[in-house]
Amino acid sequence: MINAERLLGRIDTLGGIGATGDGGVHRLAASAADGQARDLFVGWLRDAGLEIAIDQIGNIFGIYSGRDDAGAVMSGSHLDSVANGGRLDGALGVLAALEAIETLRDHGRTTRRPLIAAAFTNEEGARFQPDMMGSLVHAGGLGVEAALGTLDADGTPLGEALERIGYRGPKACGSIAPHAFVELHIEQGPVLDATGGSIGAVENLQGISWTEITIEGVANHAGTTPMHMRHDAGYCAGALTTFVRRLAGEQPGSQVATVGTLQLMPDVINVVPGQARMTVDLRNTDDDALMDAEEKLKAYCRELAELESVTISTRPLARFAPVVFDASIVDAVERAAEKLSLPCQRMTSGAGHDAQMMARLCPTAMVFVPSVDGISHNPEEHTEPEHLIAGANVLFHTVAELAED
Amino acid sequence: MINAERLLGRIDTLGGIGATGDGGVHRLAASAADGQARDLFVGWLRDAGLEIAIDQIGNIFGIYSGRDDAGAVMSGSHLDSVANGGRLDGALGVLAALEAIETLRDHGRTTRRPLIAAAFTNEEGARFQPDMMGSLVHAGGLGVEAALGTLDADGTPLGEALERIGYRGPKACGSIAPHAFVELHIEQGPVLDATGGSIGAVENLQGISWTEITIEGVANHAGTTPMHMRHDAGYCAGALTTFVRRLAGEQPGSQVATVGTLQLMPDVINVVPGQARMTVDLRNTDDDALMDAEEKLKAYCRELAELESVTISTRPLARFAPVVFDASIVDAVERAAEKLSLPCQRMTSGAGHDAQMMARLCPTAMVFVPSVDGISHNPEEHTEPEHLIAGANVLFHTVAELAED
Repeated sequence: MINAERLLGRIDTLGGIGATGDGGVHRLAASAADGQARDLFVGWLRDAGLEIAIDQIGNIFGIYSGRDDAGAVMSGSHLDSVANGGRLDGALGVLAALEAIETLRDHGRTTRRPLIAAAFTNEEGARFQPDMMGSLVHAGGLGVEAALGTLDADGTPLGEALERIGYRGPKACGSIAPHAFVELHIEQGPVLDATGGSIGAVENLQGISWTEITIEGVANHAGTTPMHMRHDAGYCAGALTTFVRRLAGEQPGSQVATVGTLQLMPDVINVVPGQARMTVDLRNTDDDALMDAEEKLKAYCRELAELESVTISTRPLARFAPVVFDASIVDAVERAAEKLSLPCQRMTSGAGHDAQMMARLCPTAMVFVPSVDGISHNPEEHTEPEHLIAGANVLFHTVAELAED
Repeated sequence: MINAERLLGRIDTLGGIGATGDGGVHRLAASAADGQARDLFVGWLRDAGLEIAIDQIGNIFGIYSGRDDAGAVMSGSHLDSVANGGRLDGALGVLAALEAIETLRDHGRTTRRPLIAAAFTNEEGARFQPDMMGSLVHAGGLGVEAALGTLDADGTPLGEALERIGYRGPKACGSIAPHAFVELHIEQGPVLDATGGSIGAVENLQGISWTEITIEGVANHAGTTPMHMRHDAGYCAGALTTFVRRLAGEQPGSQVATVGTLQLMPDVINVVPGQARMTVDLRNTDDDALMDAEEKLKAYCRELAELESVTISTRPLARFAPVVFDASIVDAVERAAEKLSLPCQRMTSGAGHDAQMMARLCPTAMVFVPSVDGISHNPEEHTEPEHLIAGANVLFHTVAELAED
């Protein structure tokens, strides 16, 4: 069993760096606060006697040698936050990975395979895009030079920002090829909290499709224009919004669908909107179902444009295929929860995580713990300490088992 | 027949005051440009030998004496424009009223009743609210002191602005009680233009109901929140928008219904909207049908709030009852058009006009001419000269007939 006091203490200490004063943290990637958080983490790695490696994109690895020179079992997450985020998102997974190693060390145990606690650079994508950048570079999905050249809103390249905080490391990106990867994370959704669950064994991660839709109608006087002579972009936006809800209900799998943004022009009370711009966020664990949903959305746009004599154009903004995690690691997570008599349910991740990038490299899965009311990316983000401890214990047992593999 | 050259020339000359350079005018109520337009109009009244009266709210009356000391037949509109408006909205009605009198005078004719050409202060409400202010005060619907105390966005009272341009007059408001009122105006809608009509005999004016709707849901992660756990304010706004369209189709009479403004919060692509604010503009010539539409809208808000577990609140922003114009004047307009062999159709005004205030005082009706593509409140506002002349001739014959009544 992990040292709960140590883990909770470290979560508190780390939560003090970049603290917003209301329980949250503001710790953008490669900022001064991120530098302090990294220093703190590296200090703990050093205290634990681990070998420390920092790669060219600033990913930090604390390596606990195994009995054999075999592929390592890696666990971890990220230290950066969104603007005014919560203290658990990312931090929990990094500290629990270290805690698992320290628990073994406390008991004088080693494993056959090395264990690695990792902190990936810029998971949030709040300052530099794309998100999940450190793990993406590690997995070979983005060249390190391109990543380091990414500019923030002020024009500062990531490479320069990393240099400034001392975390543009020497190690070649991706040179550590793990045998397996497991990430503990808060759910950031309401499912575990609502069902009273403790542990989520995450078996897959939704594919994401973002589309921007622009509707060009004709702005007209709301009093003098008969209904049959209108080309109302606002009505079309409303019809699309209700279509998107219906679509979510009709598609198989874990389909969710959201209209998150919508603007009308000219946005005046007595003018029929001449233009509307909106976004549709579609997610599904089944890529065929997701592609089908994308097609149905486009078909409805065509149908509606003809019906209302407006022009509707769509522009893809982002597209990630679903990820299926490794079944044997999901089984291992379930076994660990069972051993600890913790209620556990298989579930889907609706958000993106470093684990989805690591899944390109090696067998991977995730462990979720409940987010109270599903709140995340917000200072009010909270998970009960008992669940933090439970999640860290499940992670410990899982990586310990995998490391004997 | 009126003097077409004189009328079109005056429209051009008046359109040069406050000209925006692209065919439009920017002539806000009681501005310096409005003052120049008034000076021009008063000069023409003087040249025509009319008695001039200016009341306390700045309404201008040019009086052509009748053979008897009977109640006058009044015609007119307004000289102010919206910001960057068109040159015909209001101006046509004022100049055509003067043209009708000058045509009689040119032929050495008098009528039994006096004829009055009127220019009402601040019809647009673009600088001082409410709109149709001069005619509203004339009709006794608003006290003159309250109206003069109205502030513009810079804190200038209307009274001071009128004083500055020399149009805070001595005549008591409402002291001229006309026998009848007729207003010529561009349609500001697409109906006459689309049907190839020339003259609209306006038999009524729609009642207007403006409602602001605020939806309070819960902002949630668009990926991690299952559809059945959402309280999506954006979906509710979409459902209301499509409901409003259905409502317009189902209500009897001339029902139109418009969602003109809609904002989502936080308006982020991957967040289920937690709040939405929107407006609904309902109009109908039948007040019972309009009240019924208002009730149905409220009932649907209650139903939707329960269904989606959100809070929906409604706030009335404005309410004007429909106006039914005087049947005998509408008949007179039709007779005038027939005499001139002009195609004429009975129609409804979807916009507000000074005539709706005058209808509180005396038998009233309106004459419409086509707006190309229904465009108004815009520099592109246009009516073909032949229709301007036709409308002024119909007005001439109508007021000449009424003045013998």
